[in-house]
Amino acid sequence: MQELQDRILNEGRNLGGGILKVDSFLNHQIDPGLMTRLGAELARRLAYTRPTKVLTAETSGIAPALATAAALGIPVVFARKSPPLTMDYTIVRETCRSRTHDKMVELMVSTEYLTPQDRVLIIDDFLATAQTINALARLVAKVNATLVGIGTVIEKEFELGRVNVKGLDVPIESLAVIANMDDGKIVFKA
Amino acid sequence: MQELQDRILNEGRNLGGGILKVDSFLNHQIDPGLMTRLGAELARRLAYTRPTKVLTAETSGIAPALATAAALGIPVVFARKSPPLTMDYTIVRETCRSRTHDKMVELMVSTEYLTPQDRVLIIDDFLATAQTINALARLVAKVNATLVGIGTVIEKEFELGRVNVKGLDVPIESLAVIANMDDGKIVFKA
Repeated sequence: MQELQDRILNEGRNLGGGILKVDSFLNHQIDPGLMTRLGAELARRLAYTRPTKVLTAETSGIAPALATAAALGIPVVFARKSPPLTMDYTIVRETCRSRTHDKMVELMVSTEYLTPQDRVLIIDDFLATAQTINALARLVAKVNATLVGIGTVIEKEFELGRVNVKGLDVPIESLAVIANMDDGKIVFKA
Repeated sequence: MQELQDRILNEGRNLGGGILKVDSFLNHQIDPGLMTRLGAELARRLAYTRPTKVLTAETSGIAPALATAAALGIPVVFARKSPPLTMDYTIVRETCRSRTHDKMVELMVSTEYLTPQDRVLIIDDFLATAQTINALARLVAKVNATLVGIGTVIEKEFELGRVNVKGLDVPIESLAVIANMDDGKIVFKA
């Protein structure tokens, strides 16, 4: 998606170690117009999987997941990292290492909102090592729902997320695919 | 807002101790259509304050803040509770007690995205004791931006948030105002 690539090149910062800072429009400040278009494009590419629910993880996944769900006309559920007082029971959990925070996090979803009848589309901001996405997929399996697809805004191909989710055997769409970030550069996949 | 009151009455659960569970459409699962209409209504009521930026706190504030910012055509910034690897510097912090998690949390915003030129509209899911909103307002003051208004989806009037933000002297709009939750009931303000 050209608009997204342009924003990444103009505003993104390669902090080294594979860390891409896109806090000006995706991870801290959000451009709602861009986000709506990102969601519409993910929906356009993945609508054929006939999802009934979008699943994401707090925090940075919420905006693209909401925009995608809005375009598809289906609800979105965000997995919680710490349970609020209202999350009283019926929780399933999975643990994974967050690439963004470089620490272990727990992801929790209530079985009230993710059910065996659901066809689930996982949406997240980044596809990096895919630890978060794999944990979300395990939550989908745990509640006996059906995973139908994965969509992300930015894929860091060199962190092998696509390889790491291969066992899930569902379509994966990323709106911008970065082939490498060596030497301070940001190089998109040709 | 009648649609919101209906959803709260039909799907909300009074868990006691002033805790309202609205996880089916606001705090865990999100109804994107409803969220878009909530954002449009907050924008309609507060556009006259001429905000240049919406500010919220992760996690549950993000969806209504994004919807409001989309309707206003301005960016949204969400304060972080734990700094990601990309949040390298230029951070201002404030501490507050989260009503939803019943623990102290830190809120962090980068001065790259909240500047002295900004006219800031704070949007959050709940106006309860207003600890989070007051912490966000202190962040606005800390960066010498101008706070112009506050908008929330659900106000629990009996937790005195409106009294606790009185010193801020800006307009406050809530789309549903609950007068009391005694004896398992949910009673809206007349």
